[in-house]
Amino acid sequence: MTTSFGQLAHLGHAELLTPDLDATVWFCTEILGMTETARDGDAAMLRTWDDYEQTSVVVRAAPHAGVGRVGLRTSSPEALEARAAALLAAGHEGRWEDGVAGTGRTFVTRDPDGHEIGLYHDTTWYTAPDHLRPGLKNQPQAKPGRGVAVRRFDHVNYLAADVQANAEFHADLLGARATEEIRMDDGHVAARWLTYTNKSYDVVYTEDWTGASGRLHHLAFATDTREDILRAADLCLDQGVPIETGPHKHAIQQTFFLYVFEPGGNRIELCNPVTRLVLAPDWPLITWTEPERAKGQAWGLKTIESFHTHGTPAAAGTDDRRYRPAALARRGDA
Amino acid sequence: MTTSFGQLAHLGHAELLTPDLDATVWFCTEILGMTETARDGDAAMLRTWDDYEQTSVVVRAAPHAGVGRVGLRTSSPEALEARAAALLAAGHEGRWEDGVAGTGRTFVTRDPDGHEIGLYHDTTWYTAPDHLRPGLKNQPQAKPGRGVAVRRFDHVNYLAADVQANAEFHADLLGARATEEIRMDDGHVAARWLTYTNKSYDVVYTEDWTGASGRLHHLAFATDTREDILRAADLCLDQGVPIETGPHKHAIQQTFFLYVFEPGGNRIELCNPVTRLVLAPDWPLITWTEPERAKGQAWGLKTIESFHTHGTPAAAGTDDRRYRPAALARRGDA
Amino acid sequence: MTTSFGQLAHLGHAELLTPDLDATVWFCTEILGMTETARDGDAAMLRTWDDYEQTSVVVRAAPHAGVGRVGLRTSSPEALEARAAALLAAGHEGRWEDGVAGTGRTFVTRDPDGHEIGLYHDTTWYTAPDHLRPGLKNQPQAKPGRGVAVRRFDHVNYLAADVQANAEFHADLLGARATEEIRMDDGHVAARWLTYTNKSYDVVYTEDWTGASGRLHHLAFATDTREDILRAADLCLDQGVPIETGPHKHAIQQTFFLYVFEPGGNRIELCNPVTRLVLAPDWPLITWTEPERAKGQAWGLKTIESFHTHGTPAAAGTDDRRYRPAALARRGDA
Amino acid sequence: MTTSFGQLAHLGHAELLTPDLDATVWFCTEILGMTETARDGDAAMLRTWDDYEQTSVVVRAAPHAGVGRVGLRTSSPEALEARAAALLAAGHEGRWEDGVAGTGRTFVTRDPDGHEIGLYHDTTWYTAPDHLRPGLKNQPQAKPGRGVAVRRFDHVNYLAADVQANAEFHADLLGARATEEIRMDDGHVAARWLTYTNKSYDVVYTEDWTGASGRLHHLAFATDTREDILRAADLCLDQGVPIETGPHKHAIQQTFFLYVFEPGGNRIELCNPVTRLVLAPDWPLITWTEPERAKGQAWGLKTIESFHTHGTPAAAGTDDRRYRPAALARRGDA
Repeated sequence: MTTSFGQLAHLGHAELLTPDLDATVWFCTEILGMTETARDGDAAMLRTWDDYEQTSVVVRAAPHAGVGRVGLRTSSPEALEARAAALLAAGHEGRWEDGVAGTGRTFVTRDPDGHEIGLYHDTTWYTAPDHLRPGLKNQPQAKPGRGVAVRRFDHVNYLAADVQANAEFHADLLGARATEEIRMDDGHVAARWLTYTNKSYDVVYTEDWTGASGRLHHLAFATDTREDILRAADLCLDQGVPIETGPHKHAIQQTFFLYVFEPGGNRIELCNPVTRLVLAPDWPLITWTEPERAKGQAWGLKTIESFHTHGTPAAAGTDDRRYRPAALARRGDA
Repeated sequence: MTTSFGQLAHLGHAELLTPDLDATVWFCTEILGMTETARDGDAAMLRTWDDYEQTSVVVRAAPHAGVGRVGLRTSSPEALEARAAALLAAGHEGRWEDGVAGTGRTFVTRDPDGHEIGLYHDTTWYTAPDHLRPGLKNQPQAKPGRGVAVRRFDHVNYLAADVQANAEFHADLLGARATEEIRMDDGHVAARWLTYTNKSYDVVYTEDWTGASGRLHHLAFATDTREDILRAADLCLDQGVPIETGPHKHAIQQTFFLYVFEPGGNRIELCNPVTRLVLAPDWPLITWTEPERAKGQAWGLKTIESFHTHGTPAAAGTDDRRYRPAALARRGDA
Repeated sequence: MTTSFGQLAHLGHAELLTPDLDATVWFCTEILGMTETARDGDAAMLRTWDDYEQTSVVVRAAPHAGVGRVGLRTSSPEALEARAAALLAAGHEGRWEDGVAGTGRTFVTRDPDGHEIGLYHDTTWYTAPDHLRPGLKNQPQAKPGRGVAVRRFDHVNYLAADVQANAEFHADLLGARATEEIRMDDGHVAARWLTYTNKSYDVVYTEDWTGASGRLHHLAFATDTREDILRAADLCLDQGVPIETGPHKHAIQQTFFLYVFEPGGNRIELCNPVTRLVLAPDWPLITWTEPERAKGQAWGLKTIESFHTHGTPAAAGTDDRRYRPAALARRGDA
Repeated sequence: MTTSFGQLAHLGHAELLTPDLDATVWFCTEILGMTETARDGDAAMLRTWDDYEQTSVVVRAAPHAGVGRVGLRTSSPEALEARAAALLAAGHEGRWEDGVAGTGRTFVTRDPDGHEIGLYHDTTWYTAPDHLRPGLKNQPQAKPGRGVAVRRFDHVNYLAADVQANAEFHADLLGARATEEIRMDDGHVAARWLTYTNKSYDVVYTEDWTGASGRLHHLAFATDTREDILRAADLCLDQGVPIETGPHKHAIQQTFFLYVFEPGGNRIELCNPVTRLVLAPDWPLITWTEPERAKGQAWGLKTIESFHTHGTPAAAGTDDRRYRPAALARRGDA
């Protein structure tokens, strides 16, 4: 464990880029069951019902799908200063900005692959308006009776040309610790999972075979139960949301998962960790070999081909997975 | 098993009476996740997503909450004629009418306690409009991503002054068979469960202590899973729908249940049978004694007092359980 | 619906043939969580906890895996006589025998593909010994705290050279009704699902491409919940039981499933119908076309190749899927 | 958050005292599905399948039920020294001992109410023998196909005469942080929940009304799913394990729960947090008032009387909740 472990408190929010703002917001509210709290021109603020901060996802109109800035909350104001200083001392770019999405002063930097990261400590705790007031006072908002009703923005999975370099940047400078990885027969790291918390991962780097940089593999949202994910698969089937693979259980991290595409083309994971936590302070990095990975997922499902090829923005000449939801087409919005 | 077992195919639909039509329809669509297919003055037609007939429930404005006609589908046109003839031969009232709720010619009669029953065979199979088309062809309608999304109108539980007489009416003349009952120490039957199918019950008679007649204990809707019922409890908690008791498991019939009140005052059960069926053609009636019932539900929950006292219409001087949903009040509809 | 629908009450029990009796019994008790009630030389009697009859499965030592006699209970003594007469009148073989597995006098016949079928009405209701007494009187036996604890022997899936002929035999002479089928582009029926009850199927015929006769595709056991099937997948993974495919949801019949192999080589399905029933007395046969089937299962899983090729007895030259459970090998039984 | 937050890594193990060793071990292995790894005279070592350390619970024969030493693992060797120094500096008793249950050198102290606490850092990671080897390398042990198969020793709930003093001891000297509490109308704290991790609680103090000291309210074990808890209720019902209350959802902490009694008389909770975590580093202590608590649990279940009165050792003159499991009685062990 790095000495800076604990300085990052948790993943805060992500900016999701989309060429079809209305359709992506429809997906977030009607399928994921998120709540839109504000719209500002080409950006919509959305939240899951159990995130305590104001915003879980900023959906922003853009020429291509992909991920913009990911916000990470530090565990204290001092930790924010310390991380900024460490990043600059290590020669990384960085600048202070006013925060977005309800957060305070933010140190904006990039990982080696070019993904933008915003570090902040001050944040706005969500206060539910009357019609979204929860039944219990230890919950920020009423659970929506709509769509999957995802509980929490859970993790981000980045594509990167050099997984190991990016994972080490995260471990050395942001205080993450690596819990699992895939190492190929030739010795290079094809994917690594890191955490800031007792969750077994908060951020993942997966190898980008295309030579592009700054791309997204997927954003993931946690549900209360595995049953929510089975129900989500039914909803996606009936609502015309393309399912890529699942429901099934990952061998790595043992997460119960479903991968779907939102209308803008980004891959979205619905995930459930089934109470699994990494509590050991000296948890050893678990390495999966190439032959072990060839066995597929936990219960034997083979990894689907597109899982290795699709990212956003989509590489030139590949399927960009965009579609127009029938629900919007029906309303004459197409 | 009576010789007429098999002549009734299944429970079709029920008319639910309410002093607050808008609020009861709000409950059916937003909490139960039913689909409103038509509105005709003071009546709304609603359906669960997996009932193959057009209508599961007719919600009708009335001075008091309660149950109106319950529709039962016969297994053939001949069975319809035979049941009508048997009822008349046994001295019961009956008349032929045009059907309601998408059903054909209907023989309308009453059980000894005065509950109206409509027997029919011809019916309209539901055809989903484009925006409700399901993903699979063996399903009548897309599963809604809204509320509990109840699958099936499951059973009706009547209050009756004389349980045994009403249950025997159902067994002898409508071809039901009794699967379980409660018999008190003095020998009288306090409740009896009957079925037309391999479900363990479709209709229940429970003793009415008030001397009133024709009252409703509850209507019940089946969910896909027990988890749907746990989720329903959370939705009710956050949406201000009063929970009477549950979730828990009944000792009798082993149904997993949740009882709530709809805004008009009727008790509604969400139930899940967990794959339990009665397949034996010679299933013996199971009798629960008074001391056995005193043990409470399957896992020990004591039966709540209001369960023995509340019915609709509410007896004079008792709580009628009506309320105005916050969601409607907020919209200025109160 | 055929006029004889209703004469068969339900599927009773099946004889499962195995070249490794101990290992197959280990699978049934330790993985499926069945209860062994008797052992008679080369046969073991086993039961699920909620089947009311004495025996759900007879496991019998044999040179090859496969299925022996399947018992079907009629709804009355008269129905038994009527079915026997109808079978003989239609020119099918048949003989009266003493019953097996706790059943009474049995009429033994064969379907056109040669699978042995035993019709009976008299049967022995299971009486639990003290140490297996259930907590509730409407349940035949305590639910085991061991393995998957399957609730019910659910269905049998036969391979047959001529699906349509065998399905029609079942419909015309045994009173089954067909609920779904697969019809290939050339017009022939590749699979058909039939039921005796309100379950959507009890027996299935699937095309056997090998030219063999009398083979088994799988036996299926129903669990209480989908979660039981996810848990089963974990148990199989950790106990070394080979998973063929799943957990996933079938498009046809919408059953939630997991397919595994028992040590003798037979395919076993764990299934959960999620409260789905066929209640309509005039349910129209649903036909899936070849292109529709090419889409895979409900949520997109492609049908696994072995699903089309493996049956028991295994065809000459094909994988027979036998294995020795580690648990037995460890005990020095290998 | 105290400055020492993070120095305690997590709850390690607990010593459970019992007047009937065999029966309590039977409960842990057959009902909870734990694995016994060693027996040493009057003590048995048991583990849940996903705890990475060797031992989750030490069951020890004693004249009365209750809790002995609870082990807490520090996040580093330095943190262990720092906590020991702080405790001594604050005037608390403490001594260094050899560890138990696979742990290294241990600093043994007591909370103000007299509960024994052992702090350690060095520990033995569990290595599964061949027959308990898991299917996935990120899991310490095969999940047992027996009983509830609890995943993790989750939390300890102590009774204490002065809740606030004990909770502050835990916060100030052991680096816990308080997440929720009950405060009575007269201003005193009746219960407080504290955590060392991102779990919302690891240790709880509840007011002991009897004037006794050092007593246990319950030990709790986490399951994978809520469904596991519903299944557990069925197993307890059929196996004769007394259920005190549940399954239901706590208002406080929103945990899905079931409380049962083990044969020695200790209360055991099966709990599922449904993915809820406390990620905010500045989570404000949530205070429940006396009127709020009077509303009962999340879905309205009233808190059962014995919940306020039963602890172990049982107070003189109160029910000690001991029983002899039928399974042992049957074997002639009674």
